[in-house]
Amino acid sequence: MGSAASKPAYYAGVDLGGTKIMTGIFDADLELIGFAKMTTKAHRGPEAVINRVVRCIEDAMDESDLQMNQLRAIGIGAPGGVDPQSGRVIFAPNLGWKNINLKIELEERLKIPVSVENDCNISTIGVHEKEFEGKPRHLVGIYIGTGIGGGLVLDGHLYSGHNRTAGEIGHMVIDVNGPACGCGNRGCFEALASRTALFNQLREAVKRGEKTILTDMLGPELEGLRSRGLRKAIRQNDKLVESLVRQAAHYTGIAVGNLINILNPELVVLGGGIIEALDEEMMPIISKTAQSHILSGTGKGVEITQTQLADNAGIFGGGVLARRLVKV
Amino acid sequence: MGSAASKPAYYAGVDLGGTKIMTGIFDADLELIGFAKMTTKAHRGPEAVINRVVRCIEDAMDESDLQMNQLRAIGIGAPGGVDPQSGRVIFAPNLGWKNINLKIELEERLKIPVSVENDCNISTIGVHEKEFEGKPRHLVGIYIGTGIGGGLVLDGHLYSGHNRTAGEIGHMVIDVNGPACGCGNRGCFEALASRTALFNQLREAVKRGEKTILTDMLGPELEGLRSRGLRKAIRQNDKLVESLVRQAAHYTGIAVGNLINILNPELVVLGGGIIEALDEEMMPIISKTAQSHILSGTGKGVEITQTQLADNAGIFGGGVLARRLVKV
Repeated sequence: MGSAASKPAYYAGVDLGGTKIMTGIFDADLELIGFAKMTTKAHRGPEAVINRVVRCIEDAMDESDLQMNQLRAIGIGAPGGVDPQSGRVIFAPNLGWKNINLKIELEERLKIPVSVENDCNISTIGVHEKEFEGKPRHLVGIYIGTGIGGGLVLDGHLYSGHNRTAGEIGHMVIDVNGPACGCGNRGCFEALASRTALFNQLREAVKRGEKTILTDMLGPELEGLRSRGLRKAIRQNDKLVESLVRQAAHYTGIAVGNLINILNPELVVLGGGIIEALDEEMMPIISKTAQSHILSGTGKGVEITQTQLADNAGIFGGGVLARRLVKV
Repeated sequence: MGSAASKPAYYAGVDLGGTKIMTGIFDADLELIGFAKMTTKAHRGPEAVINRVVRCIEDAMDESDLQMNQLRAIGIGAPGGVDPQSGRVIFAPNLGWKNINLKIELEERLKIPVSVENDCNISTIGVHEKEFEGKPRHLVGIYIGTGIGGGLVLDGHLYSGHNRTAGEIGHMVIDVNGPACGCGNRGCFEALASRTALFNQLREAVKRGEKTILTDMLGPELEGLRSRGLRKAIRQNDKLVESLVRQAAHYTGIAVGNLINILNPELVVLGGGIIEALDEEMMPIISKTAQSHILSGTGKGVEITQTQLADNAGIFGGGVLARRLVKV
């Protein structure tokens, strides 16, 4: 058996979400070797969740037929405010965490270097480096799920700003007189086009007496409604759902246009559960609306697309960060 | 007399606008030595305007008691789309220019290196380097005059994006159902809070029969209305003008909040004719509104202020660019 240095190196990319933990194991070429997934069980508290992250990494290594001593580094994305320098999760409402040093906790348990990033940033790194081979100099990542978040690659590097919170595009106001947002303001992009916003709009329409086949499928309270249910309804010619999804796509297009006017990236990549479930319905409207909002000269050569990494953008980004820890 | 290399070096910073040309002469410490200003006379065509730029530089050198052979380099800002690499002004509606290589034209006439930038970018460079001594790593400059433009310093450098058009913050939609904008869309920041927008709102209010002392001063058509007239009216307790200016400040605050959420800069600096004329009326509202729109965690240590360079930000930025040409 060779020394540790001569053995092939493997890296773990972890996506720690409010409901599930996913881990991918990558080789030095960032090929995905193995994968594991489990529920987060955030209600059990930080200690228990961190132990589950460790278990998820161990499962993914086992799934990859590798020993834990073959793992060189870990990159992990967490939802909320993260200080990548200290590795501290400052504030993560979906986990119920405040000031948890995820880096130190994991390094103590696993004895290898750990890099922590915000979930949207890590997904953007994954999209930039894996899907687009690090080529775009300026890329805006937009993730539409329960909420809306973003990540920015500017001049070839992740841009995170003064407090490392840059990319909070979900709280860009695009309709000053629009609906109330969880943040306390009105008409934020997130309050108009997130899954939460779409579901609220649908429930309110049903209460007003508007018709949708989803009530036949799920009952009057639309219990268990999911993004894919919206797609199903549209494909069965549900006019209400179709018009709400179109409207969300229109707002998203305006937000994309705003971001292109402000940042003039060469690439805007959309992802997240809503885009994944409703790509065919939404992407053409998003592109068309954005194009009509881009100033002349600004849009030249600018591409608007959706990520092909789907739910895996985060673990790929984690793999990239882990690999950087060792390469540096 | 010493050789050229041992003589002190001087730099010209030029602000080429639609109505006036301003030139500042700077020493190596970026101290303003002398100044000249003349009208642009854009209607005479690019050739005539470029000759006027040369004359303005000559006047400013003469004003500074310097000979033209003591000038080492020129930095010039032009309104519109500029390609700094080639020095080409791609499109400048206020000048009526399309595809004019300002760099080559000036270098041929003056035989010293010339650097060309967009006017908002060059002002932001001036604010960043002169007023804030290059210290802020992330700075957003917002200029509110006839239109609204912006400039971004991110990670310590001017950020200009894929087509070098980044910073078109005036066309960020913040009210999807708002008034029509010159760009063809609705509710752009510029359509809500620029001088043009304010004057339009005021003229429409007068047409609807609302009262303002400005009609006593300027007649029913409000001919010759200027930004300072608005301030004068407010100080004479003009309720209509006050409410319109407050509203513009509120929209500006929302735009500032959006930009802080997206970019998380440490400093937002406002300038331009409207801010200069109405700073006391607008800045407190802008700050308060922005603060109420910034996500928690994002606003920590973020400052919102106005430039003290006033109309001179552009010439200072030109001086910075000129000095870089020689130092590199």
